[in-house]
Amino acid sequence: MEAMEAILGRRSIRKYTGEPVSDDQVKRLLEAAMAAPSAHNRQPWHYVVIRDKVTLLEIPKFHNYSKMLEQAALAIVVCGDLDLEAGTGFWVQDCAASTQNILLAAKATGLGAVWLGAYPNGGLVKGLKALLKLPEKIVPFCIISVGHPSEEKTPGNRYDEKRVHKNKW
Amino acid sequence: MEAMEAILGRRSIRKYTGEPVSDDQVKRLLEAAMAAPSAHNRQPWHYVVIRDKVTLLEIPKFHNYSKMLEQAALAIVVCGDLDLEAGTGFWVQDCAASTQNILLAAKATGLGAVWLGAYPNGGLVKGLKALLKLPEKIVPFCIISVGHPSEEKTPGNRYDEKRVHKNKW
Repeated sequence: MEAMEAILGRRSIRKYTGEPVSDDQVKRLLEAAMAAPSAHNRQPWHYVVIRDKVTLLEIPKFHNYSKMLEQAALAIVVCGDLDLEAGTGFWVQDCAASTQNILLAAKATGLGAVWLGAYPNGGLVKGLKALLKLPEKIVPFCIISVGHPSEEKTPGNRYDEKRVHKNKW
Repeated sequence: MEAMEAILGRRSIRKYTGEPVSDDQVKRLLEAAMAAPSAHNRQPWHYVVIRDKVTLLEIPKFHNYSKMLEQAALAIVVCGDLDLEAGTGFWVQDCAASTQNILLAAKATGLGAVWLGAYPNGGLVKGLKALLKLPEKIVPFCIISVGHPSEEKTPGNRYDEKRVHKNKW
């Protein structure tokens, strides 16, 4: 798929066929994830790939918008590593860029995915930290639900000229 | 360009030929920017496109890593709009996803770009806010320097198996 088609055509996909997603497919997503830029190239990220159904089904118990995980082939929890960044706070942006790469790689390789926010919501961070047994300095940033899409959506067409300013506000 | 090639091959490009970048090319970048996902689809973003040389040359006076702007065709300052988001703090991630889309669209369309962090660095936020005359609720998130590349870089190859965890930490 063309890059601009993936970028402009990506939508949040919450319905899945149930067809399995291979380890190779997941690896492509993670290669994309780690190709993201990061402040001072510190790459302050980790990824927990959840395929275990029991674990997946725990998440909707504390995350209100995650019911699609019941049908997902897997979830990827993107985590920030506070020991790997310099205390600047840029790790949040690094993890977001990495997440966006996963979503685009999913679109580009025929999968469907949706970004479920966690950090900076304290309750969601706490729930994920306990469920995944994350060490103290590892912060769960978001959950990405992944599967083979069983819904089709047209591109979002969100371009809005009013959001564009020339040289200053 | 193929989507995976753009994602895996994108690098920070800081050297430019000086060739102009057309308004149509900039519009493609902004279409990509606004195609990003955002929490509850609030799209809490604005973009200041700086082509004015005098304005561009002001930035390195307060931003240490922005000297490449002297050669750039333009810069895009991605801004968060605090009135458009619900006070959840997710605007930072939304702007980061939008920024990553711009970087990938630049790569895909033959341009070179680099992400220069601003928020949450107080001094950089203040400097940009004053320079661009941003309203109170508009926060400068980052600067993207854009031009026609005059350097070539091989893909970063940052994949690291140790960052991948199965089902839990």
